Amino acid sequence: MTEECISLAHGNGGRLTRELIDEVFVKYGKHPNLDTLNDAATLTLPNVNICMTTDSFTVQPLEFPGGNVGSLAVHGTVNDLAVSGALPLYLSTSFIIEEGVTMACLIRIVKAMAKAAHQANVRIVTGDTKVVPKGQGGGIYINTTGIGVVKGHVELNINRVRAGDHIVVSGPIGDHGVAVLLAREEFGLESQLVSDSASVYPLVDVIDTLNGVKFLRDPTRGGLAMVMHEVAQATNLTIRLNEASIPLSDQVESVCNMLGYDPYYLASEGRVVAIVSPEQSDELVALWRACEYGQDAAIIGEVLARHADQHCPVSIFTHIGGERLLDQLEDDPLPRIC
Amino acid sequence: MTEECISLAHGNGGRLTRELIDEVFVKYGKHPNLDTLNDAATLTLPNVNICMTTDSFTVQPLEFPGGNVGSLAVHGTVNDLAVSGALPLYLSTSFIIEEGVTMACLIRIVKAMAKAAHQANVRIVTGDTKVVPKGQGGGIYINTTGIGVVKGHVELNINRVRAGDHIVVSGPIGDHGVAVLLAREEFGLESQLVSDSASVYPLVDVIDTLNGVKFLRDPTRGGLAMVMHEVAQATNLTIRLNEASIPLSDQVESVCNMLGYDPYYLASEGRVVAIVSPEQSDELVALWRACEYGQDAAIIGEVLARHADQHCPVSIFTHIGGERLLDQLEDDPLPRIC
Repeated sequence: MTEECISLAHGNGGRLTRELIDEVFVKYGKHPNLDTLNDAATLTLPNVNICMTTDSFTVQPLEFPGGNVGSLAVHGTVNDLAVSGALPLYLSTSFIIEEGVTMACLIRIVKAMAKAAHQANVRIVTGDTKVVPKGQGGGIYINTTGIGVVKGHVELNINRVRAGDHIVVSGPIGDHGVAVLLAREEFGLESQLVSDSASVYPLVDVIDTLNGVKFLRDPTRGGLAMVMHEVAQATNLTIRLNEASIPLSDQVESVCNMLGYDPYYLASEGRVVAIVSPEQSDELVALWRACEYGQDAAIIGEVLARHADQHCPVSIFTHIGGERLLDQLEDDPLPRIC
Repeated sequence: MTEECISLAHGNGGRLTRELIDEVFVKYGKHPNLDTLNDAATLTLPNVNICMTTDSFTVQPLEFPGGNVGSLAVHGTVNDLAVSGALPLYLSTSFIIEEGVTMACLIRIVKAMAKAAHQANVRIVTGDTKVVPKGQGGGIYINTTGIGVVKGHVELNINRVRAGDHIVVSGPIGDHGVAVLLAREEFGLESQLVSDSASVYPLVDVIDTLNGVKFLRDPTRGGLAMVMHEVAQATNLTIRLNEASIPLSDQVESVCNMLGYDPYYLASEGRVVAIVSPEQSDELVALWRACEYGQDAAIIGEVLARHADQHCPVSIFTHIGGERLLDQLEDDPLPRIC
């Protein structure tokens, strides 16, 4: 394409829109099932019980160590399907591009999206592109909406959670949040840290027969702490985490110490938190540790009965031996990490 | 809610996000199937053959006579499913809200969305909310992604189009584009014109048994002219429209005359263009004229064989007796009408 930047005319439905679709989304997206001539994709599903989920991605900056908004948009939606107990199959993708974005940047993002979809074994089947004037966007915002079929091998239902259940995490938390933070270059910190952004489906797939697993969630916005609040609210139980067992990379720990962030509120984009019966928590950890992204899986806490006088149902037993409350997130520690 | 404007903290996944979901999207959205506790909705479909479509809506201004970005986001996606031959069933919705939007405005948009979904008989089953900083959004951008089941009564396939087929439109064109234009108040023009934004599903439903209908499209971005180019390109045929038969409201005509817009490139959001065999075009017009939004349906042109020397395959036979070429849209006459 001779144009080097996206202009408003790329979004008007005319010749340039057609060229953008053909010469960027089709050429670099390599989506074999993407029907660019029709406004809707026609699909045949393996069964009639499906999951549907949607997410818009507004991460800043658009590119960060370990990914960009394109790969993140695939992983985020694939992961929402996976932790809901579905096999992710199809994605739609909708771009809101700010006038002035370079074609080179757009192509890198479309390529990363295609690669992530290929690796996660999902197909991008339909899309949309809008262009908004300079100053009314954030570079590139991407919505992905996903469809998966319900697997139903394990009964994932938060109502099955009981006092005594264990909390297990598949790997170190907060890598994504800190990787994006450092990519903003506001702090002048250099790091080898990369985002954990990845499909968690393989981690869900291995627990197909482990019926003691009652609830799965990927700790994105709001981090581990907000997932724990979600469980506590829905069950009217209490959560106590054990700080010493929570896997944390040295880099996340040192950045949090330096800048005063609490890692339990930072986003991961390739981790899973599970609530599992105490009889099967060791087995879950063993299964996850055998996975590519699960080597650091650990039991990190337990579910307890709620006492009448507890105003905050989530706490953490700290390194120094005390118990600290993890309140609900109020102000945003790290905005726009997804 | 005590907060009067949307803040970044409404999008951080913490307490305010939860409150926004419960006190706006659930309360005013009135979506009985919206599962706000899970990241994905679980659905059972009537059959395994589905259509999936996605669209992001960035219209400016957010509210215009006859609708707002919320109702438009429902109609746009419902219509893409309808003209693809599917029965629209489920929508996801994802909001990108700019910091500072008033809660009152958001509530009006969520209400309009719920009403449009109710009228179109589709269910909003899952959602997402992001908040972006002031100056990085356009008030409210909404993505809707829709799933419908393939009806398959009529074989809609552009490859069935032949020279001699008739082109039929369900009503006056360009009302939406002009209504949005006038709502911008740049021209100081007053008008009674309202957007035609509506579900076209009833218009598609009545032609279930009319197998001479070969292709349907809603003429949104790029208008009637770009739909005709789409057909011409896909079929290698030529389109000739007849200006005298194209329904046009007096107000659209006078605004176009005054401001120099070509109505054939202006968006409609509640009209359908059909390509139909000449034997059944009168029947199609009669069926549409009996519909609520089809009273002005008309045969507006025909498909012709392509001559080797034609560089532009779409033309219009004008009021004054000449033939004018309708080129592909280059610059945007009316940006951001959807």
